[in-house]
Amino acid sequence: MDLLKEKIKNDGIVINENVLKVDNFLNHQVDTKLMDLIGKEFADYFKSKNITKVVTIESSGIAPAYAAALKLDVPLVIFKKQSSAILDTETTIQTPVHSFTKNTDYVLMASKKYLSENDNILIIDDFLANGQAALGAYRILKEAGSSVAGIGIVIEKSFQDGRKKLEDLGLDVYSLARVSKISSDGIEFLN
Amino acid sequence: MDLLKEKIKNDGIVINENVLKVDNFLNHQVDTKLMDLIGKEFADYFKSKNITKVVTIESSGIAPAYAAALKLDVPLVIFKKQSSAILDTETTIQTPVHSFTKNTDYVLMASKKYLSENDNILIIDDFLANGQAALGAYRILKEAGSSVAGIGIVIEKSFQDGRKKLEDLGLDVYSLARVSKISSDGIEFLN
Repeated sequence: MDLLKEKIKNDGIVINENVLKVDNFLNHQVDTKLMDLIGKEFADYFKSKNITKVVTIESSGIAPAYAAALKLDVPLVIFKKQSSAILDTETTIQTPVHSFTKNTDYVLMASKKYLSENDNILIIDDFLANGQAALGAYRILKEAGSSVAGIGIVIEKSFQDGRKKLEDLGLDVYSLARVSKISSDGIEFLN
Repeated sequence: MDLLKEKIKNDGIVINENVLKVDNFLNHQVDTKLMDLIGKEFADYFKSKNITKVVTIESSGIAPAYAAALKLDVPLVIFKKQSSAILDTETTIQTPVHSFTKNTDYVLMASKKYLSENDNILIIDDFLANGQAALGAYRILKEAGSSVAGIGIVIEKSFQDGRKKLEDLGLDVYSLARVSKISSDGIEFLN
């Protein structure tokens, strides 16, 4: 997606060789026009897959996931991050996630009510690095008995192994921008 | 907004006389079609106000705020909740917020970069109860020198005093559903 890559090149801030800040249009400030196009791009790619719901992880995933769900004309389900497990295992599914990027641990949680065996889910997130968040969402969906039709990622850090882990599970990973290198010289892309 | 009120009546779950759960279409699962109409409703009401940006508070406010910002064709700025203040006061504005509904304290944070004296801001949030989150957002915007054109709320708990506090500051509060009573007998509306 050329417009997105242009935006990353022009507005992305290189913090170090692992961290790229895109606060200007994706995370803190959201370029709604670009986000609408991002949603359309995901919807176009996955439209033949009979998606029943889009799933994302709060909170940076919400805008692109909502944009995609709106275009696909399906509901969005937002998985919640919590600092620790909650007692209610009757109505919720929970799984621990470690974020290598932020070096934090959290518990990802979803209500069983919104996931069924009849669902065919598209997972959308803003970043893919080590894949821990997407894998956590996948575990919850498998426990709910839902099918996973694919994973849509806005920015993939292709120099980390998240994509490989997801593809090893047989998942279709569609990333709009695949970053191969972040350095003080600039940002390089795979595709 | 009749469709929203119908949805609250049919799908809202009364937890107690202060707490109404709308996880089914607003917070956990998002009805994207309804959210798109919510965005349009906010945009129609505030379109003559020359809004430059929409501001919301993560994470339940993001979907309705994005929907409104998209219709108004302006960027969305997401204020972040943090457990404690961060050191960087050079580039950020922070303010402590107490949530009476959840009985928690957090620090609301925004980057100075995305707020200026030339901005005329529309604040959007999912719920208005005691008004603490909206007041926190207002304090940050005043410190940034931005104007506040108004506040759009999806569900107002009109039996609490948030609206009064905001109106006392001269703010235009536009709520799509004003709940006057939550009880085991059902949910009542003001408008």
